[in-house]
Amino acid sequence: MGARPRADRPRGAPLTGDGGLPTDIPGTAYGLRRATAADLPALVALLADDPLGAGREHGDGDLGAYRTAFDRVDGDPAHLLLVAVQGETVVGTLQLSLVPGLSRGGALRGQLEAVRVAAGARGHGLGAAMIGWAVDEAGRRGATLVQLTTDKSRAGARRFYERLGFVASHEGMKLPLPGSS
Amino acid sequence: MGARPRADRPRGAPLTGDGGLPTDIPGTAYGLRRATAADLPALVALLADDPLGAGREHGDGDLGAYRTAFDRVDGDPAHLLLVAVQGETVVGTLQLSLVPGLSRGGALRGQLEAVRVAAGARGHGLGAAMIGWAVDEAGRRGATLVQLTTDKSRAGARRFYERLGFVASHEGMKLPLPGSS
Repeated sequence: MGARPRADRPRGAPLTGDGGLPTDIPGTAYGLRRATAADLPALVALLADDPLGAGREHGDGDLGAYRTAFDRVDGDPAHLLLVAVQGETVVGTLQLSLVPGLSRGGALRGQLEAVRVAAGARGHGLGAAMIGWAVDEAGRRGATLVQLTTDKSRAGARRFYERLGFVASHEGMKLPLPGSS
Repeated sequence: MGARPRADRPRGAPLTGDGGLPTDIPGTAYGLRRATAADLPALVALLADDPLGAGREHGDGDLGAYRTAFDRVDGDPAHLLLVAVQGETVVGTLQLSLVPGLSRGGALRGQLEAVRVAAGARGHGLGAAMIGWAVDEAGRRGATLVQLTTDKSRAGARRFYERLGFVASHEGMKLPLPGSS
């Protein structure tokens, strides 16, 4: 974290490249790479292995809806689905999405969604390294702000992000739509 | 608000159409339509006429960065920039963006950004009507969740969204990037 956006990439360039992926996380046994369709079962298991995810993910069978979502994410250069690996094992994930808009002087926003680190890989700085890489990548792609929301019931998550420089300035509000699960 | 997603549109269809725009808001003198480049000065003035926007928008001169942002939003079917009008006058705006992702069963999210109602048009239900239309449109386009963040310093905004059914379940966290204003 903390590297300035590189001056040699135009601001606002779409997320078409791999941002230097795959890459190792210095000083650790972990690496980062772009997710592939072959990672889906591991990714869904990671999302489900979570106090909140256990109630709303369904990783024990049909992956159809996840495949559709993966194709949408993977097929749009505005999104990058990242996996952290230890050898061949997926131990973390996050999604970086670039959202353009008029406010804040026409700011391009980097948005983080679905940040997860496997229980067995916690406590070694992997989460901070993943976020740091994604924040730097957002800057390289022209974002001037990175944003995320974190469930208020996730003990420690707010402090984790505050240590990385995020400020909990906003209420994050959600509305499930009729007919959704 | 509250109309169920129409069954005759496939879930996940991109925001290519106009969603029935332009349309009138029943029982009011307001209408909704897609923003055009000609709306930019009025939109930037609306963003700047705000306790928070006054400090971070620059509507009194160069619109260059706003034009770049507008073109990005307007050129990507994942985004829809909406304006509310009274006759020829822009009195409100919001942006609806569709964000795909793996979590919550591969949920497509409708995200609202930059929701503003002109001071002189408040108190007549325009904000609720704009949000209601956008929520319904998100559902028609396949979203199963609508999300937004609102600055904790905006008095009344949280209660406004709560009245519309949103739940402030999350912390909304922001990180300005080095080199950004």
